[in-house]
Amino acid sequence: MNRKGILIVVSGFSGSGKGTLMKELLSRYADTYALSISATTRSPREGEEHGREYFFITKDEFEKMIAKGELIEYARYVENYYGTPREYVEKMLDEGRDVILEIEIQGALKVKKAFPDTLLLFVTPPDATELKNRLVGRGTETLDVIKSRLDRACEEAEGMDSYDYLIVNDDLNECVEKMHTIIQGEHHRSFRNKAFMKEIKEDLQRLKGED
Amino acid sequence: MNRKGILIVVSGFSGSGKGTLMKELLSRYADTYALSISATTRSPREGEEHGREYFFITKDEFEKMIAKGELIEYARYVENYYGTPREYVEKMLDEGRDVILEIEIQGALKVKKAFPDTLLLFVTPPDATELKNRLVGRGTETLDVIKSRLDRACEEAEGMDSYDYLIVNDDLNECVEKMHTIIQGEHHRSFRNKAFMKEIKEDLQRLKGED
Repeated sequence: MNRKGILIVVSGFSGSGKGTLMKELLSRYADTYALSISATTRSPREGEEHGREYFFITKDEFEKMIAKGELIEYARYVENYYGTPREYVEKMLDEGRDVILEIEIQGALKVKKAFPDTLLLFVTPPDATELKNRLVGRGTETLDVIKSRLDRACEEAEGMDSYDYLIVNDDLNECVEKMHTIIQGEHHRSFRNKAFMKEIKEDLQRLKGED
Repeated sequence: MNRKGILIVVSGFSGSGKGTLMKELLSRYADTYALSISATTRSPREGEEHGREYFFITKDEFEKMIAKGELIEYARYVENYYGTPREYVEKMLDEGRDVILEIEIQGALKVKKAFPDTLLLFVTPPDATELKNRLVGRGTETLDVIKSRLDRACEEAEGMDSYDYLIVNDDLNECVEKMHTIIQGEHHRSFRNKAFMKEIKEDLQRLKGED
């Protein structure tokens, strides 16, 4: 069966807890998954490290990567570029790792278009009230901030249908296992095992000929 | 999330061991799955029981079921009808059970056409040589029998691509668990959770309105 890695995009509502979920998934199954690290032209914030949170590169370097087709997808927010370097992703896939990109819906759809076998996962709290509670946070946010987060959540909700699976993040532990079994189950999809099917068909024809 | 049952078709090469696999899956997860029992007009063989292996009914009764649309699919082999009664399947699905039909490819495709959300699983030995060994059996079969089984396996192989998942039956225990996690993972598919997505979208819009 197919043990080439699967390219996975994980998106989700802000407040869905997907960051914690990814961290836990990667720490439990370190040999199975690799997290893609984005490149960006924005400056590192305190505590961020080059090659851990992001590859921090110059605008010039970024535009050279675009020109050479070295990015799977990229976008520009305000003054800064963000993108997914192709080399690391393809290396990990070839080694049989499932590679996770944690990006938003616009990027997700671009990746899916370029790589139709990409698996799209969307993380969501169990319901909208719980989502609102998480968006409101500890009550220290202004109404304006909460309103803009809700607006964004509404946009994110409109994109849910484009994803292959919805992952309800109710209990962290259960959710990590759920995500793991969903991804591992995907390895058995027939469209991911065309070589296996081809081989079994050819072998059967040969066996028939031998009779 | 969706807890309505999923309709599942399991097919596979003769010799793939799918019978044993189904039996084990149903005995381990008796509350999760229900096996659909086919109706047939053929006579019961020794040891077969009405309502266990098949519902044994008359040709007249069968044709009335066809006329009333009480069969999900049916086919005629030689002189006998075989079909899947709708009532039991729908009752089990409504109760949240995943219902398994163990039928062949022609039936599988008919069911998929009538119920596009049907999950199609194909059970296969790990390779063609292993498949041939299983077809040849204990060496008591004539060459003609083996040849006709190989012919049939070739036809079955051509149908594999129409299935959603391939289940390689290498080790019975592992295979049962693999099948179980694949089916349970399918409950999280976004297209199986349209009601959940609709609700969360509407709730978010309402919360926005309240601000």
